[in-house]
Amino acid sequence: MIAEILSTGDEVLLGDITDTNSSYLCNGLKNLGISVGQITAVGDDVAAICQVLTDISRRADICLVTGGLGPTQDDLTAQACARAAQLSLTLNSQALLTMEAYFKKRGYELNKVNEKQAMLPTGADVIINNWGTAPGFDITIGDCRFFFMPGVPSEMKPMFKQGVAHRIVEITGKTKEIAIERLMVFGLPESKVGSNLTEFETKFPGIVLGFRARFPLIEVKLMAANDDDNEPDLVRAKTWVVEQLENKVISLQGLTLEQEVGRLLSQKGNTLSVAESCTGGLIANQITNVAGSSDYFLFSGVTYANSAKIKVLKVSQNTLETHGAVHENTALEMAVGAKGAGQSDWAVSTTGIAGPSGGSEEKPVGTVCIGVAGPGVEISKRFCLDVGDRTRNKQLFAAMALEMLRRQLLGP
Amino acid sequence: MIAEILSTGDEVLLGDITDTNSSYLCNGLKNLGISVGQITAVGDDVAAICQVLTDISRRADICLVTGGLGPTQDDLTAQACARAAQLSLTLNSQALLTMEAYFKKRGYELNKVNEKQAMLPTGADVIINNWGTAPGFDITIGDCRFFFMPGVPSEMKPMFKQGVAHRIVEITGKTKEIAIERLMVFGLPESKVGSNLTEFETKFPGIVLGFRARFPLIEVKLMAANDDDNEPDLVRAKTWVVEQLENKVISLQGLTLEQEVGRLLSQKGNTLSVAESCTGGLIANQITNVAGSSDYFLFSGVTYANSAKIKVLKVSQNTLETHGAVHENTALEMAVGAKGAGQSDWAVSTTGIAGPSGGSEEKPVGTVCIGVAGPGVEISKRFCLDVGDRTRNKQLFAAMALEMLRRQLLGP
Repeated sequence: MIAEILSTGDEVLLGDITDTNSSYLCNGLKNLGISVGQITAVGDDVAAICQVLTDISRRADICLVTGGLGPTQDDLTAQACARAAQLSLTLNSQALLTMEAYFKKRGYELNKVNEKQAMLPTGADVIINNWGTAPGFDITIGDCRFFFMPGVPSEMKPMFKQGVAHRIVEITGKTKEIAIERLMVFGLPESKVGSNLTEFETKFPGIVLGFRARFPLIEVKLMAANDDDNEPDLVRAKTWVVEQLENKVISLQGLTLEQEVGRLLSQKGNTLSVAESCTGGLIANQITNVAGSSDYFLFSGVTYANSAKIKVLKVSQNTLETHGAVHENTALEMAVGAKGAGQSDWAVSTTGIAGPSGGSEEKPVGTVCIGVAGPGVEISKRFCLDVGDRTRNKQLFAAMALEMLRRQLLGP
Repeated sequence: MIAEILSTGDEVLLGDITDTNSSYLCNGLKNLGISVGQITAVGDDVAAICQVLTDISRRADICLVTGGLGPTQDDLTAQACARAAQLSLTLNSQALLTMEAYFKKRGYELNKVNEKQAMLPTGADVIINNWGTAPGFDITIGDCRFFFMPGVPSEMKPMFKQGVAHRIVEITGKTKEIAIERLMVFGLPESKVGSNLTEFETKFPGIVLGFRARFPLIEVKLMAANDDDNEPDLVRAKTWVVEQLENKVISLQGLTLEQEVGRLLSQKGNTLSVAESCTGGLIANQITNVAGSSDYFLFSGVTYANSAKIKVLKVSQNTLETHGAVHENTALEMAVGAKGAGQSDWAVSTTGIAGPSGGSEEKPVGTVCIGVAGPGVEISKRFCLDVGDRTRNKQLFAAMALEMLRRQLLGP
């Protein structure tokens, strides 16, 4: 089975965006037991797309194509596909109906421009798009089966999972999914995670080990063919991996820090408030991205200005004058203040320097103080870790704060 | 001038890493006035790499290749290149000398394994690597000039800048960039943006129009070869586009809403606070991702619980009991309360239902009330727009809030 991936769109060739769709699809195919032979990216040009589709149809058995299905004049993939398959474009009634339903649900009428999206190569099988307007489609050119999907990741990803993966499984005849165990790791570089697990291959020959960096976390995946014989091995392998990585495994189910903290809070029936300076709302945003977080999350005071730290979180003016905003004492007062303001059981706080400016010799960019307050707990710590980028520093600070909270939630 | 990029290495095809080298090189070539026709990625396989090199040599004038120049057995690019060029591999003495110098400087002796890296196709011109051990090289196959570079970004990037870019400039004789104008649009679906601009191609034949969805914003790009003749056309085209899209253009410089709001606040010397319920810290996070935001951003009260709305933002219990948390009156009291708590000139607030649960017939998922308070301004509005996903609803609510604030900052 030779699989290829084609990504279309000027934005990739202009260097405006990095093609993350292709790596997502490589992973998706890997999980179906299929390896990818080649990835190609071309611009929004009918002749170029047509040529590449023709070349791929001579080399590959299946091909996943993303991009160029939208309503605007630079969306040319269906046209290029029709030319490569020597078919005409016709109005696909099933595509039109699902688009009409999608628009109706949102209180709009379908306009002429959107109708263009239902013009598909004759005989193409529609792949329904429940996440946007552009329908996908499935068509064979030569001996190669092509699956066309939108380029917008939020539409492409669910379409691949729900509309394409099972079609591929039908072709390959591999009905068994791969069994996957996931662990989430925080606080080790990827090279160290790898070197701690070098003996894995010899110890567990039937199981494939994979890593995925989800900054600042690393997901460790253990994959095996899904039959009953493999199950005990997979359990043993997982236990062994956890032992090698010691206390750096933050979730045994592959949860993120905010999901794991939410799980622990729900389990205890406890509530949480946050006080954020340098993370600027990121922690609250991460927590509230988890559906159901309103059960345990009450409040975050994003106090960028010292005046707000004093007024909202009751940090003492004296502490700020004596030690400055970035200090363990300030962090602790912020946590205690947030706990009071939010009337919650727990609170976690951050105050630090995300950069690029604002650092000093004593407190360089990357300095962060974190406080945790809870039942019988009032602690704060200073860390210094600069990853050279403002938004990544914020992500690292947020993860360190959630990790410090997680350890306190686990108890002594 | 047809340029292509080839990236080699199993790690990309396995989905373990995203190919960021190619987008870096696309940008680098764009800055030299060269657009890229195609990007290809293949695995560590001599036959596959050789085939792709042969195909490219028939299509392109120049090609940048990354990866597979290292010392291990899966580094096969030089071998594949020699086969495609029908040349043998020979020990390149210049490559060996620079490698020896690199090792000596670090107090090491060159070992046999590293010597392999100096085995290059006969006649290849070495591109010196001052940032690692693998030398690059420059060779012509057919009519195409190939530049081979290491795959490690920290070696590839400086080699491209210092060792490759000037060679390309010598070939093209060009030094000028492509001129790009960017506009940011909010509040129109991509299909509507496209249909409003259908006449563009006829009106401005020398200029290429491009769209890029950055949910919930749409970036519109106008691109032309950067010579003085095109400049007035580009200005006229930009003005025409802005007219067609009326008041939906939120930035004439391609800024995001949080960047544009920051720019307007800085211009006025004004400060901002935020009160967030349904956006859960996202607005504060977006604002504080902009470096320098501490100049104008003071505070966000992320008040998920009603008790926090009352305690921190002084929303009246009566309003909450009479109208509920999701109501125009509550939104306005939140904005006024945040302005007071943060002691800022302006405040914007959100309260709504991001989903997936929590909706009712009267207030379905997607309902959001937004308030703005500022000098002489106290307004609030209700909207209802569900995009079917919690995090995307949050993004849409945040954008609507920032847009309502932006319009007030522009004045009457």
